[in-house]
Amino acid sequence: MERSYYNPIEVAPREDLRILQLGKLRKILNKVYKKVPHYREKCKKAKIKPSNLKTLEDIRHFPFTTKEDLFVDYPFGLLAEPLEKVVRLHTSSGTTGKPKALFFSKRDIFAQAHLIARSLYMSGATFRDILQNSMTYGLFTGALVMHYGAELLGMLVIPAGPGNTERQIELMQTFGTTCIHMTPSYALYVASVIHEKGLKPGKDLKLKRAYLGAEPYTDETRQKIEEMLGVDVYNCYGLSEMGGPGVGFECPEKKGLHLWEDAFLVEIVNPQTGEPVKPGEVGELVLTSLNREAMPLIRYRTRDLTHFIPEPCSCGRTHVRIARILGRADDMFIVRGVNIFPQQIEAVLMSIKGVAQNYQILLEGYDEMTVKVEIDRDFFDGRIERLLKLKEEIAEKLRQAIQVRPKVELVEPGTLPVSEGKAKRVIDNRTL
Amino acid sequence: MERSYYNPIEVAPREDLRILQLGKLRKILNKVYKKVPHYREKCKKAKIKPSNLKTLEDIRHFPFTTKEDLFVDYPFGLLAEPLEKVVRLHTSSGTTGKPKALFFSKRDIFAQAHLIARSLYMSGATFRDILQNSMTYGLFTGALVMHYGAELLGMLVIPAGPGNTERQIELMQTFGTTCIHMTPSYALYVASVIHEKGLKPGKDLKLKRAYLGAEPYTDETRQKIEEMLGVDVYNCYGLSEMGGPGVGFECPEKKGLHLWEDAFLVEIVNPQTGEPVKPGEVGELVLTSLNREAMPLIRYRTRDLTHFIPEPCSCGRTHVRIARILGRADDMFIVRGVNIFPQQIEAVLMSIKGVAQNYQILLEGYDEMTVKVEIDRDFFDGRIERLLKLKEEIAEKLRQAIQVRPKVELVEPGTLPVSEGKAKRVIDNRTL
Repeated sequence: MERSYYNPIEVAPREDLRILQLGKLRKILNKVYKKVPHYREKCKKAKIKPSNLKTLEDIRHFPFTTKEDLFVDYPFGLLAEPLEKVVRLHTSSGTTGKPKALFFSKRDIFAQAHLIARSLYMSGATFRDILQNSMTYGLFTGALVMHYGAELLGMLVIPAGPGNTERQIELMQTFGTTCIHMTPSYALYVASVIHEKGLKPGKDLKLKRAYLGAEPYTDETRQKIEEMLGVDVYNCYGLSEMGGPGVGFECPEKKGLHLWEDAFLVEIVNPQTGEPVKPGEVGELVLTSLNREAMPLIRYRTRDLTHFIPEPCSCGRTHVRIARILGRADDMFIVRGVNIFPQQIEAVLMSIKGVAQNYQILLEGYDEMTVKVEIDRDFFDGRIERLLKLKEEIAEKLRQAIQVRPKVELVEPGTLPVSEGKAKRVIDNRTL
Repeated sequence: MERSYYNPIEVAPREDLRILQLGKLRKILNKVYKKVPHYREKCKKAKIKPSNLKTLEDIRHFPFTTKEDLFVDYPFGLLAEPLEKVVRLHTSSGTTGKPKALFFSKRDIFAQAHLIARSLYMSGATFRDILQNSMTYGLFTGALVMHYGAELLGMLVIPAGPGNTERQIELMQTFGTTCIHMTPSYALYVASVIHEKGLKPGKDLKLKRAYLGAEPYTDETRQKIEEMLGVDVYNCYGLSEMGGPGVGFECPEKKGLHLWEDAFLVEIVNPQTGEPVKPGEVGELVLTSLNREAMPLIRYRTRDLTHFIPEPCSCGRTHVRIARILGRADDMFIVRGVNIFPQQIEAVLMSIKGVAQNYQILLEGYDEMTVKVEIDRDFFDGRIERLLKLKEEIAEKLRQAIQVRPKVELVEPGTLPVSEGKAKRVIDNRTL
């Protein structure tokens, strides 16, 4: 098959990419050092300045930017351009009450749109496709940034926004939607409603691809969605701090996400020590925006855990690959001394026959863990032994995966709270 | 004061504008006749074809396009370009269950954004302004289309979306919002919350301008909002069928809205006969999109009632002016044989001292009309005669304005349902 690329930079030799990165990195470090007093102070404290950067690897001596830095001189403190040059505010929920404030210039918006267009094209999408964009439009980057990129590629964009599942399905049917963009948890729910309505995806709907992002999910969830909707699921990665979606995207090989290295310098560090991890080792993704005009961030700690996939990709693209996000450093919870990520539990559940789309993790009392799982309706036919067997299977497989044997509750589909945005999987009511 | 314009076409001599319009109209009529079977059939039935158009006035012999036409060969029937060229769907609630489906090409989106940028610039806005866009983002044109135009002008756009009034006010304070875009009914509500919080608009907020649209409102409401928020209110007009906001906009003279005649051919017709009204006479606004690529509409019946303001505008712009929308042909309701528009009632209420921001018209029983009015809290101080006097004043002034004396109920602020989008003013529960 003849391969084609949106931009030849996608297949540039790695040596060229690195030369390009070094040039851009020098420029952006100089700019931030000159224009952002807070970052200059941090550099001075670390006794380093931009001219100390001789190679790309020298970046490890420069200070990180953390979530907390975004609240220094809030809200305009990290701007590297006059406010007049800014055309867009996006926010992202912070850990404090205040939202993170991210600013973008016209050039920033346009550059990110090109990354999205490139990513969608990589998945096979063209101007003939119809994208139903079911993320939340507004201050959240998810919908607007994807919208701009899809429009740039010439797709017909249906700005559906999230929720109102009946209407979502009507839109798909009326306008012949071929691609959807939503969170994985909402995609599971929409798929279950489509099935309950007796609609046959290949026949009654024209869906071909689902772009899922904004929350981590497992390969098992991907497979479930692919089967239920008859689509190819593409994993997309982004965060508001780096301009929203379009930072990384899967190619049709679906073995990890390419991060666009002409736009981002990519590091993975040990979240405790801040030192680079060994190739293939899990750590925290750290990103530097190489193109950002209004508000460049140097060595931003994403809190997202992943690892590099060091082998070259057979799609021909030279840009680095990372594994799907394994969790957020912040999502981790501890039960009986064991570090657990919700994704570990999801991976087990979605691999078990009979488990439906929704689940919830409940932490109560003195370190008690209960996993509530929706299972297929036909299990509630009175055959109690069958139910008990499923329950035992789930509990045992979870114990094998996470070293803790949780209490398992099986419930009918539709019982657990439905998420139309980012799913809230863990409810922590512990008294300890 | 030196005047400046976003585009010299704004002050083109009318003769030149008309020549431009005739050329564009010929082109678009030919295109629609050739590409849209449904419109061609209508022309054939009317025994007319594009070559019959010799002057602009000949347009009156061509068939109208109505709301109902939008549902023929739904949803793609009125497309004049292949679907591949379409990049955006917007919808607008129809009278039937199905929404109107409006399609736009890249060029259409960009052209409308320029009309918005031109309109905002006309009001005095520049790239230094910060626009809080509190319309609903998504399938509704209001927010996205304004967003694109403001961004094109280089304003900092805060894509706030509607609702969550506390957060709206926080955003205004944190980011120094200078301009807001919302519905007039929501602006009244936001203004009342700002006052209840004891915030002083000129001191605690930096608001300068409010762009209000998407529902008709009166000059009295404008004045009230201007006083409460310390802003200049600009009336903006648009409809999804014509690409959303940006069709017409007030200049700083604030005596009617300029409709951009390089983009639209403007007619006002008698809603019963379809014939042109005399200059200054009220009728239904009929618009032909002269630039639309994907889905041009010929002589679209907007259902909006207005009249021309024939005098030249002292701002220097030559584009035709219309009065603020006086109502929708569909909003009219009949009580005891009298045609009434909600705007007539609003105009009376907002001119009375003591009346607060919200009201509701209730039609019940056998043609009984009740007007519920929120009034200032300090009226509920026990002085019953003062309340009765206000009630009598409202009832009597309404009788003078609409020939029907309604029952009047005075309620405390916050009692009536708050609208965060288009206000629902009339509740018709009549049994006749």
